[in-house]
Amino acid sequence: MGYDAVYDKMKDECGVFGIWAVGHSEEAANFTYLGLHALQHRGQESAGIVASDGETLHVHRDMGLVADIFNAEVLAKLKGGAAIGHVRYSTTGASHVKNAQPLAVQYAGGAIAVAHNGNLVNAEALRAELESQGSIFTASTDTEVVVHLLARARPTGAPGTVEHLLGSIRQALGKVSGAYSMLFMTPKAIVGVRDPMGFRPLVLGRLKGNWVLASETTALDLIEADYVREVHPGEIVVIDASGVRSERLFPEQRPATRLGRCVFEHIYFARPDSVLFGRSVYEVRHSFGKQLAKEHSVEADLVVPVPDSGVPAAIGYAEQSGIPFAMGLVRSHYVGRTFIEPQQSIRHFGVKLKLNALRGVLTGKRVVVVDDSVVRGTTSRKIVKMIRAAGATEVHLRISSPPTAWPCYYGIDTPTRQELIASTHTTPEIATYVTADSLGYLSLEGLYAAIGDERTGFCDACFSGEYLIEFPKRPAQTPLRVVGG
Amino acid sequence: MGYDAVYDKMKDECGVFGIWAVGHSEEAANFTYLGLHALQHRGQESAGIVASDGETLHVHRDMGLVADIFNAEVLAKLKGGAAIGHVRYSTTGASHVKNAQPLAVQYAGGAIAVAHNGNLVNAEALRAELESQGSIFTASTDTEVVVHLLARARPTGAPGTVEHLLGSIRQALGKVSGAYSMLFMTPKAIVGVRDPMGFRPLVLGRLKGNWVLASETTALDLIEADYVREVHPGEIVVIDASGVRSERLFPEQRPATRLGRCVFEHIYFARPDSVLFGRSVYEVRHSFGKQLAKEHSVEADLVVPVPDSGVPAAIGYAEQSGIPFAMGLVRSHYVGRTFIEPQQSIRHFGVKLKLNALRGVLTGKRVVVVDDSVVRGTTSRKIVKMIRAAGATEVHLRISSPPTAWPCYYGIDTPTRQELIASTHTTPEIATYVTADSLGYLSLEGLYAAIGDERTGFCDACFSGEYLIEFPKRPAQTPLRVVGG
Amino acid sequence: MGYDAVYDKMKDECGVFGIWAVGHSEEAANFTYLGLHALQHRGQESAGIVASDGETLHVHRDMGLVADIFNAEVLAKLKGGAAIGHVRYSTTGASHVKNAQPLAVQYAGGAIAVAHNGNLVNAEALRAELESQGSIFTASTDTEVVVHLLARARPTGAPGTVEHLLGSIRQALGKVSGAYSMLFMTPKAIVGVRDPMGFRPLVLGRLKGNWVLASETTALDLIEADYVREVHPGEIVVIDASGVRSERLFPEQRPATRLGRCVFEHIYFARPDSVLFGRSVYEVRHSFGKQLAKEHSVEADLVVPVPDSGVPAAIGYAEQSGIPFAMGLVRSHYVGRTFIEPQQSIRHFGVKLKLNALRGVLTGKRVVVVDDSVVRGTTSRKIVKMIRAAGATEVHLRISSPPTAWPCYYGIDTPTRQELIASTHTTPEIATYVTADSLGYLSLEGLYAAIGDERTGFCDACFSGEYLIEFPKRPAQTPLRVVGG
Amino acid sequence: MGYDAVYDKMKDECGVFGIWAVGHSEEAANFTYLGLHALQHRGQESAGIVASDGETLHVHRDMGLVADIFNAEVLAKLKGGAAIGHVRYSTTGASHVKNAQPLAVQYAGGAIAVAHNGNLVNAEALRAELESQGSIFTASTDTEVVVHLLARARPTGAPGTVEHLLGSIRQALGKVSGAYSMLFMTPKAIVGVRDPMGFRPLVLGRLKGNWVLASETTALDLIEADYVREVHPGEIVVIDASGVRSERLFPEQRPATRLGRCVFEHIYFARPDSVLFGRSVYEVRHSFGKQLAKEHSVEADLVVPVPDSGVPAAIGYAEQSGIPFAMGLVRSHYVGRTFIEPQQSIRHFGVKLKLNALRGVLTGKRVVVVDDSVVRGTTSRKIVKMIRAAGATEVHLRISSPPTAWPCYYGIDTPTRQELIASTHTTPEIATYVTADSLGYLSLEGLYAAIGDERTGFCDACFSGEYLIEFPKRPAQTPLRVVGG
Repeated sequence: MGYDAVYDKMKDECGVFGIWAVGHSEEAANFTYLGLHALQHRGQESAGIVASDGETLHVHRDMGLVADIFNAEVLAKLKGGAAIGHVRYSTTGASHVKNAQPLAVQYAGGAIAVAHNGNLVNAEALRAELESQGSIFTASTDTEVVVHLLARARPTGAPGTVEHLLGSIRQALGKVSGAYSMLFMTPKAIVGVRDPMGFRPLVLGRLKGNWVLASETTALDLIEADYVREVHPGEIVVIDASGVRSERLFPEQRPATRLGRCVFEHIYFARPDSVLFGRSVYEVRHSFGKQLAKEHSVEADLVVPVPDSGVPAAIGYAEQSGIPFAMGLVRSHYVGRTFIEPQQSIRHFGVKLKLNALRGVLTGKRVVVVDDSVVRGTTSRKIVKMIRAAGATEVHLRISSPPTAWPCYYGIDTPTRQELIASTHTTPEIATYVTADSLGYLSLEGLYAAIGDERTGFCDACFSGEYLIEFPKRPAQTPLRVVGG
Repeated sequence: MGYDAVYDKMKDECGVFGIWAVGHSEEAANFTYLGLHALQHRGQESAGIVASDGETLHVHRDMGLVADIFNAEVLAKLKGGAAIGHVRYSTTGASHVKNAQPLAVQYAGGAIAVAHNGNLVNAEALRAELESQGSIFTASTDTEVVVHLLARARPTGAPGTVEHLLGSIRQALGKVSGAYSMLFMTPKAIVGVRDPMGFRPLVLGRLKGNWVLASETTALDLIEADYVREVHPGEIVVIDASGVRSERLFPEQRPATRLGRCVFEHIYFARPDSVLFGRSVYEVRHSFGKQLAKEHSVEADLVVPVPDSGVPAAIGYAEQSGIPFAMGLVRSHYVGRTFIEPQQSIRHFGVKLKLNALRGVLTGKRVVVVDDSVVRGTTSRKIVKMIRAAGATEVHLRISSPPTAWPCYYGIDTPTRQELIASTHTTPEIATYVTADSLGYLSLEGLYAAIGDERTGFCDACFSGEYLIEFPKRPAQTPLRVVGG
Repeated sequence: MGYDAVYDKMKDECGVFGIWAVGHSEEAANFTYLGLHALQHRGQESAGIVASDGETLHVHRDMGLVADIFNAEVLAKLKGGAAIGHVRYSTTGASHVKNAQPLAVQYAGGAIAVAHNGNLVNAEALRAELESQGSIFTASTDTEVVVHLLARARPTGAPGTVEHLLGSIRQALGKVSGAYSMLFMTPKAIVGVRDPMGFRPLVLGRLKGNWVLASETTALDLIEADYVREVHPGEIVVIDASGVRSERLFPEQRPATRLGRCVFEHIYFARPDSVLFGRSVYEVRHSFGKQLAKEHSVEADLVVPVPDSGVPAAIGYAEQSGIPFAMGLVRSHYVGRTFIEPQQSIRHFGVKLKLNALRGVLTGKRVVVVDDSVVRGTTSRKIVKMIRAAGATEVHLRISSPPTAWPCYYGIDTPTRQELIASTHTTPEIATYVTADSLGYLSLEGLYAAIGDERTGFCDACFSGEYLIEFPKRPAQTPLRVVGG
Repeated sequence: MGYDAVYDKMKDECGVFGIWAVGHSEEAANFTYLGLHALQHRGQESAGIVASDGETLHVHRDMGLVADIFNAEVLAKLKGGAAIGHVRYSTTGASHVKNAQPLAVQYAGGAIAVAHNGNLVNAEALRAELESQGSIFTASTDTEVVVHLLARARPTGAPGTVEHLLGSIRQALGKVSGAYSMLFMTPKAIVGVRDPMGFRPLVLGRLKGNWVLASETTALDLIEADYVREVHPGEIVVIDASGVRSERLFPEQRPATRLGRCVFEHIYFARPDSVLFGRSVYEVRHSFGKQLAKEHSVEADLVVPVPDSGVPAAIGYAEQSGIPFAMGLVRSHYVGRTFIEPQQSIRHFGVKLKLNALRGVLTGKRVVVVDDSVVRGTTSRKIVKMIRAAGATEVHLRISSPPTAWPCYYGIDTPTRQELIASTHTTPEIATYVTADSLGYLSLEGLYAAIGDERTGFCDACFSGEYLIEFPKRPAQTPLRVVGG
């Protein structure tokens, strides 16, 4: 649903942020607001903040951008020294405020809020089982499944204690399968968890004496917090009045040797100013471009990125190849959510609303265009044509990742396999479709060479089809029969 | 919470409406919209409609008035031949859209929507028990308790069948105690239920071949449906493709001989054009006035109602006493939700925004003022003073109900016992407080004489303190620790 | 345009309010807000307030109801000790915020704001003349004409002085013909003017040491100001730092002996709690009813008003005739601006959304229905049918005014002559059309007998066709060619 | 007012767009909507469209972004084959919808709409003169002055003819002094005018048989119109049913030899994909960077632009110097209008909300930062510090324009002279203030060398203080005494 068909881009599912500033600041919600602003690229559909004043969880969630949802009046109601927040991707129609996060509910253990980045592959099965045990569902997110499991856990320890909370979380997450970086908050503690394979990112930061958890380091930068380290795959981090401490999520399991960190975060999702999985995203993308130039060199006059995501790789390609770099495509930053087009026009304005080609720069030039990925190929085709219409004599498309041939089940919104052009077409066929003079994808080996890390630390199922966690082949999906909210 | 402190009026909790027009009309939501409009006086905080297209429930709920929440675009999305709706009272601060109704959830039995008018006295206990069994709660309404009980029921019959649905409803309602007139809707049926003592009203109507359920007959009038009959206390009415049929809610129980129909509906809540518990509300109020004149006659020049609710009783009083009737108070119909007052003023404008006294009518007159009830006495005091300031030489306050001395636990929002002036003051003391020359309340006997019915058919706990259903004396109330939404 | 075709009611054009509280209160805008609230019945389309802080005029105008347009934040920006405000009628489509009042402009004399209740019969001609002299027009109100005339006046006295201001007003109004009660405000003074024949009402009040001007006394009542007197026809009232003083608008003219006070204000427009042209509106309407009973008696069981405007006359009719009074029609107070109706319905819900007949009261009864006026007859027909459908055996329609047979050109919005049923049909024909068993209108003589005043003091052109000011027979109307704003 | 103090950027005043598609398309408003979207960078405060259906002008104007103001419903009301539109800059407080453009009024010549980009230096004097002749003013824009002059013109030809219209425009513009690119539209024609010195840009395009006028060519690109040519300084272009034709605005004057095209459009305002004054903006900026490298070389490791405006010059600098180019600062595209910051923080988040420095890229590097201009220096200082905090060992600031030392009076919003850091500080002093290791501005000679054109064709008063049109030294400014709308 979240896949952006207009611009043919895959969509990350979410971003999370949490801060424990109890005793230092009563403005946890304000810091969370800033943190979510820095994570806005990870989801533009809805956002929410839950703040704790030590007794009560104060909730505000709505559809829209962070800067539109929250104002001084709303933030003033979100009292307390601790808060977690969430941004969610933009879908086209079936989006409702009831799916916004963090979820906040009351159960036998007290009040709890949950913010989730990821996707559970066995959510449908768990949901059916929970329903058969008498659970009711109001939203269509898999996060609701986790909350139900939490409420049905029977851990040791008294309700309200951290022991009980951690026990509940372990019992709940012990039943789920998939990708998750999650924040939990009770009136007394914040808990951050990353699944054992570490699909989605999660980092720990420090702002003076306060602790911060966030999907990306860019959120730390904005509030001027220091980056401490990644939350490790399979780690559980507890922050409360007694400070911060780390435990293994499933102490009885052996730590995973094969990790599943999402390599696509490096390619497209993460902001270039983030440090992801221990590496600068910008630097990694820059290396992709250099490697791409080595693998697919071509004689040309200009290297042009598809802005903004293609810029670092294009700079790398230009450096490696010695071909001059130029911003031959300009991007508009005022694209509205819904755009009216002349009915009489036979042309689709979609991509043109966002990108324009610079005739003065491109005319008479042989152009290497660098983009991060090709999903269905529709937008690439428009971009190639736009560049040629602006006067380019040759257009060579270079992609800073391997062919995207397999859908993701771990938190990224992709079209079905049939719609992924690389799953049904060879590279020369794709070149023909997008009307490029040549087309070159970065190789899988080149990808890891550029990252400078082992492939065993990453999930690259979207390129390789090697899925690290099994998922239902064709899930007997119960259609959700309650729509709207 | 819903008690209107500005105008010192008790508040009804809600109104419900449902229509089954499958096969006849695909505009069930439009009819429900009109029905809710006619029931708007029963709740102005929020409203919602759930429509069924036979497969899916389509939901829209929001804060505000019916005419503001729904427009052509929204109604067009609420597709189908069956729909239920709900209006909810206005509270001052803690109102959130997540408390709006109808609730619509998915559970093992499929999708279901619930609209509830009433109050469950054991909701807190049930909630605690459900939480201990692993249920989670997102809102603060007792309706959520009913839905959880429904989901945990284990009736006979296959999920999705009416047998299973009715079994679930019976098991769920078998555990609750209190007042409820409820509508349930699945994709395949609408079910109306009234509690065994029949506290809150519910009527059955017919619009050509279609069946309608509503809190009051005024909703039938608007859509030009015929009034068929009341849904009986303890009755369950099922409407589906096979027509309408009636069953007893708890067949194994003996029908209640002592009923608890809310006598305050006749006094204030219901619209005067409704037929309530088989009697015209206007006629009943008119009789209250006549009886009141018999019990508390006084020499005077004018009988003046407090509009609008005091009008029929004042007409009756005037007729019985022979004193001329006059609209000596005029009511504004443009009172906004929030009203700005000059800070420098020492006076409170509250009542003046709504009522004004007619100097030309009242000057030099001995005035009988007729109102329906006195709660804290604050507004009565202002009205008496306003009439005297307009030139009346005497002001005699007549109340068309007995002294309100006990809080309601069955669906009406009242202040605490301490705030009810009649629980702590004698009638002469109240007369002094409200600065009236005399004060007369209708007697309890006179009330039933005027209705022309047996007291054993009604709940009058607010006057008598005779509560028909036990409620927790001082419930060990778990504070809700999730606020907002 | 403002004529309410849904409910077949003529529409008053506007209400005005002004307060000079300089030195006493810096909350002039707040008092104006309350005053406009009390005048809301005179116009629901748009509203505005202009406040003066002694140097600058602060403006806020918008579409909608007073309580929706103004909030604490907006009112806080309307600083100063003096303010004027305006409410404007509701039209169906061509309403734009640029037509909202008060107008506030800057010209050679400084800043000035104008609020106007009335209609200028020579506005089109003046507009054409002004355009030919180089004036530009942005709105479609005749008030803009007055402002242009003001700016082109060449009075004695220095710009910014009261002498200059009054001279400008006199020169400007000397050119216009028609009905006007107007408020002007500069940073230093408020001026109230009423045309020489006094068509539209305007009263002077006092709130402690402050002076208030308002269309009706109900606005004085709400802010607890004392009613001082009417502003006289042809009077100009100046309020500034030196106090209040009165002058004749056109000292060189002899005072008008024939006045044109709008008799329809007494019949329908004014609020019943107002004192209008020196008489209580309620009392006058009550007398209309008594007179009507004398003129058109009938044997019947009940006298029923069409609420709310028909209530005082119905009470008078009942008293005079001895027939019991009953509120056999109930009015809804939640009618929204736009209402969605089921498409499949062949019936028009219009009137039903607002009125419902009480079957329990009306069944088997011979009913006298009292309404204030009949315009096209469409709504009367629906009401008569509604009452008969509720079980009445006879329905006798009584109208507390003479037949409305002529359009108004002095500030009231009426349909064209052809649409006025009384201009083309006899009373028996109208009775047949509205399906009443009998129909009786109050006679013109009876009208004045009931008021207890001379006909020469009033305009009754809508009944008599005797127009007191000539107007263009068929104005060569230049179509406004700028729509929207 | 429009100067962006948060980000220390000067602001262009407006953008205009017009299309004549009569006979070809009835969707002129839709095309205008797209055109304004492409010009959104020229003004984000308010926008408006006026469409002509041949008889009537249909207007819609509001505060906000183009994509928020217009939707399908609004555009459907803007009927006709011709339309003009306008976007206006963002001010901080005193912005009101009444200042939004296009203005649309009715005068003796009929209906006319005007959209203006520029600034009239004698507007205050003209306004005073017009007021003394009886004109009234409702807004605070100098465009209103032009409309009044137009309405007071006395040209030959019958009202409504093109002859009359052109005569009126010539008489009106003959009195104004300053910078203007203006569009006029009557129901029958669109007229585009550019002042004799050509300060602000205006281009002519063709979309199949239809003619288009726009501030920048990027608006032509979006609707896929062809760029025909610039409207010449002192040219008047008339588009109507008889096609397009060009005349000289003031035929009796000799064409200006000294032109005043705004050189700052090339430096910052125009979009890089536009062709401005006959040259590619991107190419010009790229040349600025090369020239800057020649004038102010330095030993360094990286060239980093301040995105987005500094990018082309930085690429040029990198190419010329051989120092690698890197996107070491990343820009957020989700900055909301109002942003809440933690109160307890002592730091100002302003720039950080928009820009973040990439530690991984910058650490240990000697960095050349390229920006387009320095106004007050406050943001430059923050950027230099941010880069150093990210680990840069040296920060060398390079500005692709000369020191901005003089305010603009021709349509650009600048701070006062005192606030322009370059008017009171030497370059070394500015370097010290912004904490840069070195600072280099492009020289004025270098600027024109890079453009490749004569200085006599441009206005560079902001750098040189050589103002081409006299303006009042200290205008006796009448304070506007009507605030709000």
